[in-house]
Amino acid sequence: MKVSVEASAEKRGRGRRSAAEVRSEVLTATVRLLFEEGMQAVTFERIARESGASKTTLYKWWPSPGAIAAEAYFASSEPTLEFPDTGDLHADLVAQLTAFVTLLTDEKVGKPITELIGAVQIDPDVADVWSRTYALPRRELARQRLRVSQLTGELNAEADLDIMVDQLWGACYHRLLILKVPLADLNVDRLVTYSLRGAGSGT
Amino acid sequence: MKVSVEASAEKRGRGRRSAAEVRSEVLTATVRLLFEEGMQAVTFERIARESGASKTTLYKWWPSPGAIAAEAYFASSEPTLEFPDTGDLHADLVAQLTAFVTLLTDEKVGKPITELIGAVQIDPDVADVWSRTYALPRRELARQRLRVSQLTGELNAEADLDIMVDQLWGACYHRLLILKVPLADLNVDRLVTYSLRGAGSGT
Repeated sequence: MKVSVEASAEKRGRGRRSAAEVRSEVLTATVRLLFEEGMQAVTFERIARESGASKTTLYKWWPSPGAIAAEAYFASSEPTLEFPDTGDLHADLVAQLTAFVTLLTDEKVGKPITELIGAVQIDPDVADVWSRTYALPRRELARQRLRVSQLTGELNAEADLDIMVDQLWGACYHRLLILKVPLADLNVDRLVTYSLRGAGSGT
Repeated sequence: MKVSVEASAEKRGRGRRSAAEVRSEVLTATVRLLFEEGMQAVTFERIARESGASKTTLYKWWPSPGAIAAEAYFASSEPTLEFPDTGDLHADLVAQLTAFVTLLTDEKVGKPITELIGAVQIDPDVADVWSRTYALPRRELARQRLRVSQLTGELNAEADLDIMVDQLWGACYHRLLILKVPLADLNVDRLVTYSLRGAGSGT
């Protein structure tokens, strides 16, 4: 995972890479910069140097370094934040939200992600990429898991899935971004119980 | 409400103001700058010029212009965001949250507040003032209203009020800050129904 400047210089000497390879290496380098040095290290200059991509390529593909960070975060967090489906919705939501809270409670991830979300509020280009490549796809994954439980009858077929998503993940972000109180104090099990009962499940 | 540079120069000529007066005029001038010109106009320089306070005073009382903005926003939004108590918790929460959503849906308020919340994620001094002078006091006001309903038996006495607050206001912030979808599409009545039912009320 750790790629030094020398290693990326070597890569440059490795011959022509496909666009998909360059894209993937840019995202990997950006996530590394974000988590190791924070948002202030995420510049076109540094990303170009660390990934071996040219700055021209970066300018062409992304409107700002923050936009690369938003896309890179989605790609890197996908395995950690996947939605289990064991047939028990309450347990699956607790597992997913606990992984999410644990990820953000880790200072090395929580701080840069909070800064990235700060950039999302200030720069409309970052907001656009964040919303399209991270937040809305993640909401769709959550909806898909909830729809499975609507089909099996575990969750009320009429439940407003978007409100459930807002209540579940919104509660976590509320503590992280607005209240600035420790996320670790959130009782995830109770949050899930309230949200499922509120939407009309038997949990 | 509109105070020109000339008017604030006049104020300076009006003789010595008390610390409380200066503080109040600083907050008024800052809210005006924030809503009329956005966060980028909120600098010590501009606040000093518009309020007639010296920059030395500002430096002494606040760690950063963003910190003044956070405190000023709480003071200015207090009347709009007050918690009604008509004895009907569902109706009162819908009324308060509708006022909150309406305030943030107004582009002239929503945009600078979103930018201010962005600054909260990036600058720890702004985060500290925002949390102490806006977010935590507002949570306490919400808890107080919920506690009244616990006493009357309208709300389950065992309900976790902090999770309810996270679900209700967190849902709104989730759309505003994370998803970047129109807040106006949120069905506030249904959000309140889900949150009250989830916490164990008869609503």
